[in-house]
Amino acid sequence: MTAQQPTTAPRMPVAVVGLGPMGIVLAETCLRGGHPLTVWNRTAARADDLVARGARRAGSVAEAVAAAEVVIVCLKDYDAMYAAFGDTTRAAGSGRPGPLVVNLNSGTPQEAREAVEWAASRGFGYLDGAIMVPPPLVGSPDAVFLYSGPREHFDTYTQALETLGSPRYLGPDPGLAVLYNTALLEMMYATMNGWLHAAALVGSAGVAAADFAELAHGWFTPAVLSPASFRADAPDLDRAEYPGDLGTLHMNLNAIEHILRTSREVGVPDDQPRLMKEIAERAIAAGYGEQNYYAIFETFRT
Amino acid sequence: MTAQQPTTAPRMPVAVVGLGPMGIVLAETCLRGGHPLTVWNRTAARADDLVARGARRAGSVAEAVAAAEVVIVCLKDYDAMYAAFGDTTRAAGSGRPGPLVVNLNSGTPQEAREAVEWAASRGFGYLDGAIMVPPPLVGSPDAVFLYSGPREHFDTYTQALETLGSPRYLGPDPGLAVLYNTALLEMMYATMNGWLHAAALVGSAGVAAADFAELAHGWFTPAVLSPASFRADAPDLDRAEYPGDLGTLHMNLNAIEHILRTSREVGVPDDQPRLMKEIAERAIAAGYGEQNYYAIFETFRT
Ligand SMILES: NC(=O)c1ccc[n+]([C@@H]2O[C@H](COP(=O)([O-])OP(=O)(O)OC[C@H]3O[C@@H](n4cnc5c(N)ncnc54)[C@H](OP(=O)(O)O)[C@@H]3O)[C@@H](O)[C@H]2O)c1
Ligand SMILES: NC(=O)c1ccc[n+]([C@@H]2O[C@H](COP(=O)([O-])OP(=O)(O)OC[C@H]3O[C@@H](n4cnc5c(N)ncnc54)[C@H](OP(=O)(O)O)[C@@H]3O)[C@@H](O)[C@H]2O)c1
Repeated sequence: MTAQQPTTAPRMPVAVVGLGPMGIVLAETCLRGGHPLTVWNRTAARADDLVARGARRAGSVAEAVAAAEVVIVCLKDYDAMYAAFGDTTRAAGSGRPGPLVVNLNSGTPQEAREAVEWAASRGFGYLDGAIMVPPPLVGSPDAVFLYSGPREHFDTYTQALETLGSPRYLGPDPGLAVLYNTALLEMMYATMNGWLHAAALVGSAGVAAADFAELAHGWFTPAVLSPASFRADAPDLDRAEYPGDLGTLHMNLNAIEHILRTSREVGVPDDQPRLMKEIAERAIAAGYGEQNYYAIFETFRT
Repeated sequence: MTAQQPTTAPRMPVAVVGLGPMGIVLAETCLRGGHPLTVWNRTAARADDLVARGARRAGSVAEAVAAAEVVIVCLKDYDAMYAAFGDTTRAAGSGRPGPLVVNLNSGTPQEAREAVEWAASRGFGYLDGAIMVPPPLVGSPDAVFLYSGPREHFDTYTQALETLGSPRYLGPDPGLAVLYNTALLEMMYATMNGWLHAAALVGSAGVAAADFAELAHGWFTPAVLSPASFRADAPDLDRAEYPGDLGTLHMNLNAIEHILRTSREVGVPDDQPRLMKEIAERAIAAGYGEQNYYAIFETFRT
């Protein structure tokens, strides 16, 4: 499946509810993909540019819902969705099934499951989703969108979903898309925080971030922190096998203590390495000191 | 500079002090590179294999020092180095300069600077260093070793340093190698902790780490968390420019709150996202809420 395959099928009418930095790009992508587009945003002026380029402005969410087969919701969170929809229900006697509400805002698995009930009580189909790329990648084949919920919704509305990027179906549990989303974002923030803290550490000696990036991202991350090695190591996590012959958790704790003490020496905040130390100590207290670093996973998993 | 260039120059005699998982590999690499090798370890039996393969066992650090032009120290930390060396000094009247002590254990910049005095008072040359790869990569061209201290030491002993990997000279301040080391390791632990916590999050729904790795490292990290984009963004940190038009720190805090609440919902430890939340809140309190996520750097830098 690739984004924006050439097609001769008529383009499904779409509504986009929510025109923040992400919603605007979703709407632009639908316009470019040829979908009849209706947009709504609480602060109506954010729709002006889109309207000038051919979108229809809905005066209410109910109007947007009545105009579309697929209603893409991209608001701050689930509460914002409930606030925006108010008492909107499926247009009575419209004769059409649906529409399908595709909720792309961030949230928790439990919130996604609750939204299924909410949608059903209003006569909407419901698919939960998550956008795994920043706005500039939306519409490209690299733009992975995760979906979970009824498979038939995913299949029926694939045409609209493919306009946005590469849709990936995770399973019928509607909570899966946000669960994966939070997991991938945890990786993202953890990695960015580590990079920024590292840049601050060497920055204390007057090293520019751009110069440090040459070493850190030009060499260290590709050679030492490579996605390929994480993938290759993942089965060890599933087997709970953490041989310590190339380096033990004790050795890693020692290195982490030096990160912590260096942070204090040079005057950058120490809370990230302090938490790393606690995590390593917890795993050592649980008996994993002679195993390798990945053994901390045993203190994370449920 | 590549590791282990063919050469006809006589190989410098080397000593390796410390035969933990890393020291053993350093010693093996020196043997393979043709250096006359003397080894010492507190627990002497760890040298047995190396001795069987041609290394000479020193009965004391003083013996190792007397036998070598370059003494590679790879112990737990600086205190272990002081304990191992005891009152060892340069062999009186040996007629040779040095030897050069190359200290590769982990520590803090201040500890590295103090070690310079210590070495000088004993008649040793001193170069501080850090090994940026795990043992299996030692000896390969990918094996970056960082060094700092007097440039002439780095140049004079390059032959031995190149045996271990690709040596990189950072500058005369002896604290630089460990400073870069702690920074790169901070990135490594942050990234690994994020990945392991993410694997635990999806693991709560029965997803195998190997399956999640396919998405996380097969697609997400290369496309979204790519070293190339960090490098491209680094000049923004140096300019302190964080435009929020594609996504604000407020939006990111909202996403982080969902990671935190999801962690609690599924029962994995919440301290990593809790700290992420504190960091984002601190930056918002400092006035960066409408800027992009990288603005947290302003609360890290000295
Ligand atoms: N930007 C990114 O890089 C990115 C990437 C992936 C996923 N996402 C996700 O996409 C979603 C939207 O993100 P965003 O960056 O566009 O900005 P955002 O700040 O998360 O959301 C802004 C949108 O939410 C609306 N909103 C907030 N509270 C509301 C309420 N009570 N009632 C009605 N509308 C309300 C805003 O309306 P007003 O204009 O009237 O304030 C605006 O349309 C979020 O869940 C985010 O996690 C964003
Ligand atoms: N392993 C890796 O992946 C890796 C990667 C990069 C850098 N490093 C760094 O390399 C250094 C060595 O690491 P490692 O993995 O080999 O293991 P380690 O556990 O950090 O160090 C073990 C070595 O230190 C010695 N030692 C500890 N305390 C001592 C003391 N008081 N007196 C004398 N010797 C003492 C041990 O002797 P005994 O055998 O007698 O206990 C052994 O030779 C560390 O600083 C580490 O941060 C390691």
